[in-house]
Amino acid sequence: MIDLVKNYSSMVRRTKVSAIRELLKYKDMPGLISFAGGFPSSDLFPSEQLKEIGIKVMTEMPEVMLQYAGTGGYMPLKEEIIKFMARHGSNLEPENILITTGGQQGIDLPTKIFVDINDPVFVEIPSYVGALNSLASTGAKFIGIPMDENGIITDKLEEEIKRLISIGEHYKLLYTVPDYQNPSGVSISLERRKKLVELAKKYNFIILEDCPYTYLRYDGEEKPSLFKLSNSENVLGLYSFSKILSPGLRLGWVCGHKDIIRKLEILKQSVDVCCSTLIQGVVAEYMKMNLLESHIGDVVKEYKVKKDLMLKMLSENMPEGVTWTKPSGGLFLWVTLPEYIDSESMLKKAIEHKVTFVPGYAFHHNSEMRNCLRINFSYPTLEQIEKGVKSLAEVIKCEIH
Amino acid sequence: MIDLVKNYSSMVRRTKVSAIRELLKYKDMPGLISFAGGFPSSDLFPSEQLKEIGIKVMTEMPEVMLQYAGTGGYMPLKEEIIKFMARHGSNLEPENILITTGGQQGIDLPTKIFVDINDPVFVEIPSYVGALNSLASTGAKFIGIPMDENGIITDKLEEEIKRLISIGEHYKLLYTVPDYQNPSGVSISLERRKKLVELAKKYNFIILEDCPYTYLRYDGEEKPSLFKLSNSENVLGLYSFSKILSPGLRLGWVCGHKDIIRKLEILKQSVDVCCSTLIQGVVAEYMKMNLLESHIGDVVKEYKVKKDLMLKMLSENMPEGVTWTKPSGGLFLWVTLPEYIDSESMLKKAIEHKVTFVPGYAFHHNSEMRNCLRINFSYPTLEQIEKGVKSLAEVIKCEIH
Repeated sequence: MIDLVKNYSSMVRRTKVSAIRELLKYKDMPGLISFAGGFPSSDLFPSEQLKEIGIKVMTEMPEVMLQYAGTGGYMPLKEEIIKFMARHGSNLEPENILITTGGQQGIDLPTKIFVDINDPVFVEIPSYVGALNSLASTGAKFIGIPMDENGIITDKLEEEIKRLISIGEHYKLLYTVPDYQNPSGVSISLERRKKLVELAKKYNFIILEDCPYTYLRYDGEEKPSLFKLSNSENVLGLYSFSKILSPGLRLGWVCGHKDIIRKLEILKQSVDVCCSTLIQGVVAEYMKMNLLESHIGDVVKEYKVKKDLMLKMLSENMPEGVTWTKPSGGLFLWVTLPEYIDSESMLKKAIEHKVTFVPGYAFHHNSEMRNCLRINFSYPTLEQIEKGVKSLAEVIKCEIH
Repeated sequence: MIDLVKNYSSMVRRTKVSAIRELLKYKDMPGLISFAGGFPSSDLFPSEQLKEIGIKVMTEMPEVMLQYAGTGGYMPLKEEIIKFMARHGSNLEPENILITTGGQQGIDLPTKIFVDINDPVFVEIPSYVGALNSLASTGAKFIGIPMDENGIITDKLEEEIKRLISIGEHYKLLYTVPDYQNPSGVSISLERRKKLVELAKKYNFIILEDCPYTYLRYDGEEKPSLFKLSNSENVLGLYSFSKILSPGLRLGWVCGHKDIIRKLEILKQSVDVCCSTLIQGVVAEYMKMNLLESHIGDVVKEYKVKKDLMLKMLSENMPEGVTWTKPSGGLFLWVTLPEYIDSESMLKKAIEHKVTFVPGYAFHHNSEMRNCLRINFSYPTLEQIEKGVKSLAEVIKCEIH
């Protein structure tokens, strides 16, 4: 028998299982209500339109759709993304864009080109587990920055930067989800956005601005992206079609400085060569027909109803001592229980009561925040939200003393 | 302006541009005949069948096709792959398989879980450029092992292993393309296959057995895979749908030991979450309808004609002092020019004569073999093969003195 321990690299020891992906095994358990995943609602997929477009591109140019694409991306898709981003205030050229295999690759590739083992990386407390796992596998040393209701506390960030400078450390990168953060649902205020960009320029670091939920805005005004505020210099904008169209397509894009995009493209050559031409062709045509923005409008309408219902059910059912965020967009909200409750052990009881969530520790770089949990409102039906929040409240009541 | 040099990781310095991907820019130059890419013939794609199957799966289960899939792969596709592999002599369970984003991801993920910076890795001379680039970006220290007409010279491999042991080095991995190798077109003999597997067991290392061309066999008998010969223990088999179906789908699979597959799956969670469900659903249905093997039969028939024509044209046109391999499968053959000719500088002249190839240095871990070149016979038409070999011969004749 082969001795695998001898052969595995150190990356294996650094790479963690995704707590969320592992919870997927409960997804199809009969009667279970899942608040755990970050799945978009399956009812909303524009499947008829995508099917018709699939027929069109496979009829008109099958030899293009089934052949390799360029590593940077299928040019007609880049052109549509340029138009889309221009409507949201960013002016891009094709060389500013890399098409990625879902939003996750948009996180993972930059991680690889910026982070060496033991490089300090700034992350929010809490932060997106998929980004924490990518960074951990690359060898990042996490520097957690606390958040409040206005997002990442930029004064605390500057303190940490100064501390690192004083000990001669080589900081390079900050990862943030500025809009309706996963997991907290919190957005960064305009003032803090300006400060973040200022700090990045002053102290010469890169911001990975992850925007999978940016266009899922239910209340309030659109805030300018860090990418836009920085004139693209210190910021890579990470976008995904997963939440605004379909995750089964596995498509996203990164926009940023041409030099950085080129480095990402060269790395992608050896990672997976290119994204599916067929999928890129379908999405390009979908955008060209001006269907994406109206679809986002439909999604926003339905998710707002779900979010409002979940907030109402939480108010009506949660016992005293439990608090939660009130997001104005995205897919998630963040519940804080009394300090003495451990949400990971509570999850087992919740599954017995046919409801799941993701325990808070999964979103903390040191597995803290054990009294918190993330719940999702996009995937469950309205009926499931009503029933699920009631069950969850029952489970929590049993834990409170 | 941001100082990127300060922020880039050491991986950026290790990651090379793919010479082949960069040559793609010439692909659409009018009148140019490309022997450079490894593209399958666009005429052969079963686009009508794939379109019909796309309609079927998007009609019957759109909510599955457009949602996230499990990271390990869409189970109906794994089941079809198990049947396919069983027909070729390997018995697998779903836990022995990881579905990957094209064959390249099947190379890149194992590279990451086995190789630490400066770990020695055995590669063939010459070797596939995409694997060399993946390994280089991870930090491998290449140990080149020469080949002859029977493939990798296993005695030389054992010498190198003993040398590494004598200096206390930590070898772990060998990368090989045993069937119709890219770039050489050479296959490993049965005797050497047995020896390779024996060495892997004796000296406790992993073989990455890359098989994108294995089923494209034009002459001779099917040889047993290293995976089969080793009872899967020390070998990961890497497969791709790119050459046997379509590269625009971006789908492949890795088979191996359950522990290794699990490690690869955990890494894939943070790399790109999962492969496109829609694409996996289409390919699963295509295989279920028993269309893949008959399609491979059609491809083999056409490529054999192209390969034979290319060999005939080479015999008739190449000047003395030029030799080439006679592959019995795959997409490529390898041409050796007199030592004093540099194929990279010759490429510029070839492009003027409207024909391209990939210079040999791209396939050597130290950029040697500068008097060699790889030519592809799957993508050009019969007419282009006739014309292109004549042009290439003219260009070479001007270099010979």
